[in-house]
Amino acid sequence: MTDSFTFKLLATDGKARRGELSMPRGTVRTPAFMPVGTAGTVKAMYLDQVRDLGSDIILGNTYHLMLRPGAERVARLGGLHEFARWPYPILTDSGGFQVMSLSQLRKLTENGVTFRSHIDGAAYEMSPERSIEIQGLLDSDIQMQLDECVALPAKPQEIARAMELSLRWAERCKTAFGEQTGKAMFGIVQGGDVAELRIRSAQALKAMDLKGYSIGGLAVGEPQAVMLDMLDITCPELPADKPRYLMGVGTPDDILKSVARGIDMFDCVMPTRAGRHGLAYTRRGKINLRNARHADDPRPLDEESDCPATRDYSRAYLHHLVKSQEALGAMLLTWNNLSYYQRLMQDIRDAIEALAFADRAAGITEGWVRGDLPSL
Amino acid sequence: MTDSFTFKLLATDGKARRGELSMPRGTVRTPAFMPVGTAGTVKAMYLDQVRDLGSDIILGNTYHLMLRPGAERVARLGGLHEFARWPYPILTDSGGFQVMSLSQLRKLTENGVTFRSHIDGAAYEMSPERSIEIQGLLDSDIQMQLDECVALPAKPQEIARAMELSLRWAERCKTAFGEQTGKAMFGIVQGGDVAELRIRSAQALKAMDLKGYSIGGLAVGEPQAVMLDMLDITCPELPADKPRYLMGVGTPDDILKSVARGIDMFDCVMPTRAGRHGLAYTRRGKINLRNARHADDPRPLDEESDCPATRDYSRAYLHHLVKSQEALGAMLLTWNNLSYYQRLMQDIRDAIEALAFADRAAGITEGWVRGDLPSL
Repeated sequence: MTDSFTFKLLATDGKARRGELSMPRGTVRTPAFMPVGTAGTVKAMYLDQVRDLGSDIILGNTYHLMLRPGAERVARLGGLHEFARWPYPILTDSGGFQVMSLSQLRKLTENGVTFRSHIDGAAYEMSPERSIEIQGLLDSDIQMQLDECVALPAKPQEIARAMELSLRWAERCKTAFGEQTGKAMFGIVQGGDVAELRIRSAQALKAMDLKGYSIGGLAVGEPQAVMLDMLDITCPELPADKPRYLMGVGTPDDILKSVARGIDMFDCVMPTRAGRHGLAYTRRGKINLRNARHADDPRPLDEESDCPATRDYSRAYLHHLVKSQEALGAMLLTWNNLSYYQRLMQDIRDAIEALAFADRAAGITEGWVRGDLPSL
Repeated sequence: MTDSFTFKLLATDGKARRGELSMPRGTVRTPAFMPVGTAGTVKAMYLDQVRDLGSDIILGNTYHLMLRPGAERVARLGGLHEFARWPYPILTDSGGFQVMSLSQLRKLTENGVTFRSHIDGAAYEMSPERSIEIQGLLDSDIQMQLDECVALPAKPQEIARAMELSLRWAERCKTAFGEQTGKAMFGIVQGGDVAELRIRSAQALKAMDLKGYSIGGLAVGEPQAVMLDMLDITCPELPADKPRYLMGVGTPDDILKSVARGIDMFDCVMPTRAGRHGLAYTRRGKINLRNARHADDPRPLDEESDCPATRDYSRAYLHHLVKSQEALGAMLLTWNNLSYYQRLMQDIRDAIEALAFADRAAGITEGWVRGDLPSL
């Protein structure tokens, strides 16, 4: 049987890869940025807008969705795509990361995690099998194994223990997922900031012959240089013909530098969260709209953008909305930020196809360094 | 010189009036509902959406805008239309109502009100002349006189004192406004729930020959029947050829009953505020999306609506968004509510033209009384 979940490399430029990840609900152009739709909504956006910005795929958070509205309920309502009105690919995390960061009274054993909801204190169990079951109920196209992610800095023994546990859980998730055409279950490379552990994890997962590989446990407190070292070490251990997803990363600069090391997929709350905190990502760097310098500035964030939020609204108006805590401030800045991120990904994809990635990345970085327009 | 601010009665049906209020920035079809754009934004909406729903005019709050971003700043930025990107008519209140309800340490004299901002405690003075100056700086198309609005119940002497003061302020506002073609300054009928005072106020304002007349000091705590009595008494005292604006009103039912008494214009925070509190106005009445009965309901609010928020999203999803306090919940329900209000106004206008207002109003009311769909 031919699997309708496929990954095709279209071009490479150095280690940077331009590819296409196809599945029945659509094709994801890589390198891809996946907006985070935590609770079945990309905060402060209509999903139509998210799509129009060039998003081929969004991410859903298993932990949030299992607590509310509940995985069985989403399944009864036709799955997450139908529920949230997003008929395109959806990737879900395993829930493990947020169980460890958000839930209460959690207890981790070989079998899995028991915890209490941060919303109402209700007790839950999450095993590798239950995580896959939930992701199936959500009808997720790309599912993640349950893993244990350790915040850095951490002791090597602790990192090793969590990584080995994650490998055993990867096997159980693979078994639980079984054979499903058109969908995928990705394994997650762990190993913290310890090169040998990263290599051990990547090799063991590669041996499982999964449909894709995530790199987890990075951007969890370590300097960017450490993260990039880990990518330099990990990517060569992963099969070239499978997609590589760097979880929870990152800033536009993180993305450029990770693409240069062979990463294909990203997700991050930064563009959406920053949009709710008065921050705008632009080709001239990050702009803080709370700053009084914008109060009388009639200029838009970027007159050359084709995003209405970026091009049509004055900085003075955005400043006013942010200061007044008006919903429209978060709506416009989130729109601007996702627009910028997706524009960046398109530039990256075009540059790789043109075998000009390094130059283009340098040019983009120069724009950030040059900084914002001088005040009027 | 011919004034480009005109009001034309197109049809009447009983006391209900179908008209057109024209000014350089556009024509307002009456009866009209004006969405409230307190601080230069209709909360949780893009103004493009507000326009697309059939809004010919929005309202801005002088009190909020004078405090933040400041009237002089708005003027420097090209006026409120340019600032908020709404090139169509804007009506502003005088600021008086919110000075009395929101500000601190306020002191009212014959000359005006001194008060401190509820935002930062800064001291301000608001006289009839300053209110008109501020509304001019905002470049408001329809400006309101400064008045004193008394919350009901109140003693007749107190109501009379505030009403007489408001009449003297109307004269001063008229002088301050002067001759401006294409714009209008409306007087405000006060007099609380005392028939003689309402008549006295309306007659005195009529004698000033203003371009339009507001009715203030209603929907401030009195039963609906009292409000309707006051309209029955007041409307006949106002000139038939000038628009009549019932300030701050109201529910869909208030609107139907006020149109029946000859009111042309309305504004109210209800559709927008309710949208942020999980409440949906529909042709089947008001629906509380917080209610658990919606948690598993795949049906939209109203499958026959042409508003995407009303027609395309399941009640289960809306319930989830509201319970999760997601911005999209407020965005969709505000959209639904303004859509419902503007659809109601269009129905009202069509019915008056067809000389079928009473029947249509009865039919609409029946729909509300019949109530929501039975649970699945």
